[in-house]
Amino acid sequence: MLGRVLCAALFVGALQSLAEASQGHISVVLLGATGDLAKKYLWQGLFQLYMDQVSNGHSFTFHGAALTAQEPGERLMFEVLKKLSCPPDEAPNRCAVLKDQFLKLSQYHQLSSAENYTALSREIEALLRQEGLKEAGRIFYFSVPPFAYTEIARHINSSCRPPPGAWLRVVLEKPFGHDLESAQQLAAELTGFFREEEMYRVDHYLGKQAVAHILPFRDQNRQFLDPIWNRHHVERVEVVLKETVDAKGRTSFYEQYGVIRDVLQNHLTEALMFLIMELPANVSRAEEVLQHKLQSFQSLWGLEKNSAVLGQYQAYSSQAQEELQQAQDYVSTTPTFAGVLIRSDSLRWEGVPFLLTSGKALDERVGYARVLFKNRAYCTQSETLRDAGHSQCKAKQIIFYFGHGALNTPAVLVSRNLFRPVMPKDSWKEAVARSDLHIFGQPLSDYYVYSPVKERDAYSVLISNIYHGRKDFFITTENLLASWGFWTPLLDSISHQPLRLYPGGVENQHLLDFEMVSGGLAFTLAEPAELLNPTRHMPSDYKAIQSKYRQSPLVSAWSEDLISQLASDMEEAAVRSVARSGHFHLALSGGSSPVILFQRLARHHYGFPWKHTHIWLVDERCVPLTDSESNFFSLHSHLLQSVRVPYFNIHPMPVHLNRRLCVEEDRGTELYAKDIVALVANASFDLVLLGVGTDGHTASLFPRSENGLEGAPTVVLTESPVKPHQRMSLSLPLINRARQVFVLVLGKGKHDITTLLSRVGHEPTKWPISGVSPSSGQLVWYVDYEALLG
Amino acid sequence: MLGRVLCAALFVGALQSLAEASQGHISVVLLGATGDLAKKYLWQGLFQLYMDQVSNGHSFTFHGAALTAQEPGERLMFEVLKKLSCPPDEAPNRCAVLKDQFLKLSQYHQLSSAENYTALSREIEALLRQEGLKEAGRIFYFSVPPFAYTEIARHINSSCRPPPGAWLRVVLEKPFGHDLESAQQLAAELTGFFREEEMYRVDHYLGKQAVAHILPFRDQNRQFLDPIWNRHHVERVEVVLKETVDAKGRTSFYEQYGVIRDVLQNHLTEALMFLIMELPANVSRAEEVLQHKLQSFQSLWGLEKNSAVLGQYQAYSSQAQEELQQAQDYVSTTPTFAGVLIRSDSLRWEGVPFLLTSGKALDERVGYARVLFKNRAYCTQSETLRDAGHSQCKAKQIIFYFGHGALNTPAVLVSRNLFRPVMPKDSWKEAVARSDLHIFGQPLSDYYVYSPVKERDAYSVLISNIYHGRKDFFITTENLLASWGFWTPLLDSISHQPLRLYPGGVENQHLLDFEMVSGGLAFTLAEPAELLNPTRHMPSDYKAIQSKYRQSPLVSAWSEDLISQLASDMEEAAVRSVARSGHFHLALSGGSSPVILFQRLARHHYGFPWKHTHIWLVDERCVPLTDSESNFFSLHSHLLQSVRVPYFNIHPMPVHLNRRLCVEEDRGTELYAKDIVALVANASFDLVLLGVGTDGHTASLFPRSENGLEGAPTVVLTESPVKPHQRMSLSLPLINRARQVFVLVLGKGKHDITTLLSRVGHEPTKWPISGVSPSSGQLVWYVDYEALLG
Repeated sequence: MLGRVLCAALFVGALQSLAEASQGHISVVLLGATGDLAKKYLWQGLFQLYMDQVSNGHSFTFHGAALTAQEPGERLMFEVLKKLSCPPDEAPNRCAVLKDQFLKLSQYHQLSSAENYTALSREIEALLRQEGLKEAGRIFYFSVPPFAYTEIARHINSSCRPPPGAWLRVVLEKPFGHDLESAQQLAAELTGFFREEEMYRVDHYLGKQAVAHILPFRDQNRQFLDPIWNRHHVERVEVVLKETVDAKGRTSFYEQYGVIRDVLQNHLTEALMFLIMELPANVSRAEEVLQHKLQSFQSLWGLEKNSAVLGQYQAYSSQAQEELQQAQDYVSTTPTFAGVLIRSDSLRWEGVPFLLTSGKALDERVGYARVLFKNRAYCTQSETLRDAGHSQCKAKQIIFYFGHGALNTPAVLVSRNLFRPVMPKDSWKEAVARSDLHIFGQPLSDYYVYSPVKERDAYSVLISNIYHGRKDFFITTENLLASWGFWTPLLDSISHQPLRLYPGGVENQHLLDFEMVSGGLAFTLAEPAELLNPTRHMPSDYKAIQSKYRQSPLVSAWSEDLISQLASDMEEAAVRSVARSGHFHLALSGGSSPVILFQRLARHHYGFPWKHTHIWLVDERCVPLTDSESNFFSLHSHLLQSVRVPYFNIHPMPVHLNRRLCVEEDRGTELYAKDIVALVANASFDLVLLGVGTDGHTASLFPRSENGLEGAPTVVLTESPVKPHQRMSLSLPLINRARQVFVLVLGKGKHDITTLLSRVGHEPTKWPISGVSPSSGQLVWYVDYEALLG
Repeated sequence: MLGRVLCAALFVGALQSLAEASQGHISVVLLGATGDLAKKYLWQGLFQLYMDQVSNGHSFTFHGAALTAQEPGERLMFEVLKKLSCPPDEAPNRCAVLKDQFLKLSQYHQLSSAENYTALSREIEALLRQEGLKEAGRIFYFSVPPFAYTEIARHINSSCRPPPGAWLRVVLEKPFGHDLESAQQLAAELTGFFREEEMYRVDHYLGKQAVAHILPFRDQNRQFLDPIWNRHHVERVEVVLKETVDAKGRTSFYEQYGVIRDVLQNHLTEALMFLIMELPANVSRAEEVLQHKLQSFQSLWGLEKNSAVLGQYQAYSSQAQEELQQAQDYVSTTPTFAGVLIRSDSLRWEGVPFLLTSGKALDERVGYARVLFKNRAYCTQSETLRDAGHSQCKAKQIIFYFGHGALNTPAVLVSRNLFRPVMPKDSWKEAVARSDLHIFGQPLSDYYVYSPVKERDAYSVLISNIYHGRKDFFITTENLLASWGFWTPLLDSISHQPLRLYPGGVENQHLLDFEMVSGGLAFTLAEPAELLNPTRHMPSDYKAIQSKYRQSPLVSAWSEDLISQLASDMEEAAVRSVARSGHFHLALSGGSSPVILFQRLARHHYGFPWKHTHIWLVDERCVPLTDSESNFFSLHSHLLQSVRVPYFNIHPMPVHLNRRLCVEEDRGTELYAKDIVALVANASFDLVLLGVGTDGHTASLFPRSENGLEGAPTVVLTESPVKPHQRMSLSLPLINRARQVFVLVLGKGKHDITTLLSRVGHEPTKWPISGVSPSSGQLVWYVDYEALLG
């Protein structure tokens, strides 16, 4: 039957002869051929592919597949196929002929067992032999639930791969896990069956015309954008998807995912990446695009609890309770609204806020990515004139409008006071201005507005790109894991955050407005209940418990609050010290605990007198400073590169003199001690920050160390029980000369030593930390609840 | 006569008895008592002082003085005094009595010769003896042209100082010079006669109520402002004085000064300083205020030619020609309009533009200082709602409104979505909202609006502050010189800049709108003539001449253009190198020429791949790195502290090992050479930047040097003929391994050596620079017109 069909194609006069053009045959297998997605988008997309490509060299067959038995499955599938429509821009005659051909080229297969896959493969091979066609490749489109992925993948890999020389492309639909771990697991499983270049993970936003045009737009308008596409000109970037619908009927899915996993982690993040990634020299080289996209993940700051505001529409909990058959008092903690602040520390974007927002049950349905530029102009004339025409004092923005909303079409908008963009005339046309319409506070006539010549569904765009092997329209494994790696810490930290309840629709009023506050986001309006309560707690309220530990002051709280308290106390100490003496000598420890502290200091404490601060190391590993094991390297990455400590005030330990590591005759310890004596009055640091090891070590002073536990206040070489063994450290007597010593202890792993230390006295040989006791300074313990309470 | 008058005061029932209260007598001497300023403001201000202070402890006499002979002078002066008015808030009865007293306490004196001053002094002393009063102090108000200052000052100092124990205050009116040099000269002259604390230099803007309230406002609203008064929240600061009048009738003055000297250097700068200075703990301590104000000058970036846009109203030249009796073709280069971009590199303000604007013949008369905050909010609801009420998405600003304009009163305005400010109730009242009025794009009802309870003329405010000895309301010598030091380089560099001509009034349209472009300002609209000319030059057009010098490429231009070309070429080299090898090894020379280059790189080249750049020194002086003579110190101040080169990539020369300088056995040269070999592939720097000395030296390789001119590619210690003698330097053979060598030669002083070098061959012993000849790299000369052409 297929044989005849392939020949039939030759009779369509307008088409090129298959025989002369055929570069081989492509078999498309749609798994889940009778499911919702297939019905709604995929078959239509495949038909579009056929229409576009039938005359371009490849021949096709289309194999719908499902678990359903042959007869009912075939019937179900052909009911769908019969309803395929011709696009308005296609000649009806040609389309009717092509649709007829497409139906003839399509077959249904029950695919459940390994045998079924083997049979399919043999069928394809037999057909090709029969027609004398070379096999170009096979596309398997997984329109099935993720739990079925592994088994199908195994079958394809073992029984249905095309012969050598032909390619395999498997197309996967989200969700691709629900956090980093599950995504890694799923990715690892798939990697057992497919090579990276064989996998096409779909995020259908990458097929939306306005999203797909972001990179080409940036490329074609380089001359205008190059000077302004940076932190000096861009005020903020917003990527927004607002929905009016709620989750009713879908709560069984939604309850597991919530808005961040559903929309932000994938769609909005991808659109953002296209906006902020460094533009490859050649945007049509998928490999370069993917590489640059991946790199821009690396420049993003980690998200913290306060990076997000979360909400839930009021009816959600009862909908979930009903649909999931939960008890009456069921309370869902799933957010249906989120605003997230993302920041990058790239030279290009440092300081520019990226706001991602999405929610259900909002006042309008609209999606867009918007780049708002700073007002760089001063208009000398008074306001009346200033507002007329395309004054430079008006807002300047570029908007990629995904669709819906006031415009109700995908569009690209560029403020007329920016530039007239270069747009590809064959695919984008200038839209007729509707003067009554206002978009982002300005009449539409203030913009150059372009909309697609042909509106194309995202799946058509994607299927065409699968055919062309354009991997940059899909999510690579690295990309996926980078995205989950970015989002998972936030998802973890907010899992028990309270949500703001909102009524839904226009009733939400200002309830979901939010703003950037000290590095994070907060709703602008207090909770209505709080508004009524005049004694509500201010954010500056002290959330940490204060008490005593080993006869010294103890500050304790959950780790995040503890770190923020410690950072504030350090800033206060620094400001006091600079006011007193003109400088602040700060000695910092290595290890993992201070990393969050360093980040907090870098990002939230711009009042810190860095210019007058000297940075010393408490201890160092004998590795080059550029080694990732180096304490200094970590300090540099997380703090120094973000603040402005003068070069002269930075004092790494000289563990790498004469290009060799901690060789005694290089006398690094003496050198450091001399520097301290020369610069630090009385060799008394203003503040020393210490940690504690599970063995009671502090600095690099380990139990039973031969050096540094007593004797002169100096710098010593020591031996660590763990690698790298060789260390340099301030000695206890030197530490004890400090004006203030803060000890930071974080995490459950430190509970035992914390408990032990609360009982023992001054026994530095057993537990070096117990010897910390500033002779005329102050000691403060910062111990989080997990370390303190286990 | 005066004796009787002093007694007469006792009869005014409402007043405290002089006898019981007198803390001493104050004599006020108004020099130029019949001049314009005296007539218009000063006598009224003195009368106000008398009304305010008559019952507060001091007794007064007022001495008008001028060069005019006694009889006509006296008559002229009393004509003025009779017209003194009572303020509306003063009881008419009391005022009439006080005015009568004031007239009786006032005398005219002809003051021209030394004898006149001696006589005045004796008269005051005699009167006080007679009345049994102690002398508290004398105020001399110089309302005379500056050329008369020195002589008057000499007379006062030698013949009219009060006796020991009583103070002297001399009040000076601008102009205080017309550039740094003349200001220094005038200041030096005055310092010969008066102590700093005796001088009160008037800038009457400091007496304007809205300006005078900036610091108290910042102080009283610390709780609201502390978190937002910084670069994270402030988008820009504008200080603006627009006038509708032109300079007609005043061109003889104006032609020498122009708008920058007339308004920006003093009034607008002072208002800006109140906004941006660090707030002292106690704003009522004048010394602290002055100190902080002075410090904020230090954080300002130097102004460059492109920091300003300049204009002149069209009728100005002919007005000047007529009034100055110049020829018909007289063309004035005096600006009557200026917009200036000022930036600070303080941690608080880095990146925030401060725009100062003033002009004559504009569309409205208004003055204000405006702090515009960033929009930190995202309003989730659609726009209609967003614009209603006091949404966080509306503009947020604080405006100190000097007067005139739409409000026609001094005022303080604070956007209601910011906070309700704390205002002193006795002096500022909340203004009634006029809903029809729009201020800075928003209805007046969007602001909290406060106006003074009593409107007081600036001179009354200042005279009161002279009386109270509040020096922070005046310009100290240090402040004055700091301001001139800041403005003079701009005034010098623009003295022959073309001006944009504007018609005046509303006709100006958008002609004077300007915007921030690559670190400077530019008019938004091209010159009308240019608009018509499609072949006009784009700013990116290459303005430098290219040719050959010593067989190598030569780039030549005026120094500013040359530096900007060199900086661009360096960035290009860096980008290319990073693309090729992942890093860029740049070796930089010391000296003064590169300073402008460093600043340009720091401020205009954020595309420079600093993160991947290694910074090496070509040469160094044997001084500590923190010594201001150190090449590295200069490099750090002008470049490194403003960009983000990783600590590990910065390679100062090790001239200060073991805390001693260039001691051979410390083997600094070997160490540096080893570092180079370890990090720089093939010891071949990607780019070496050199200079040339008038003796033909380059790097620290001097004529007839024993080291470094030949031999191995290494690092050497050398001797300079000038201090500090000891130097460390890359050797010529090492320099000649570089891929690119750029030689920068600037200034007339280098013309002779430039000419000489164009003629000589390879003679490194005589002229080390002649030995620069990269063996497989490229050499480019950057020589400015002054060095090239003399």
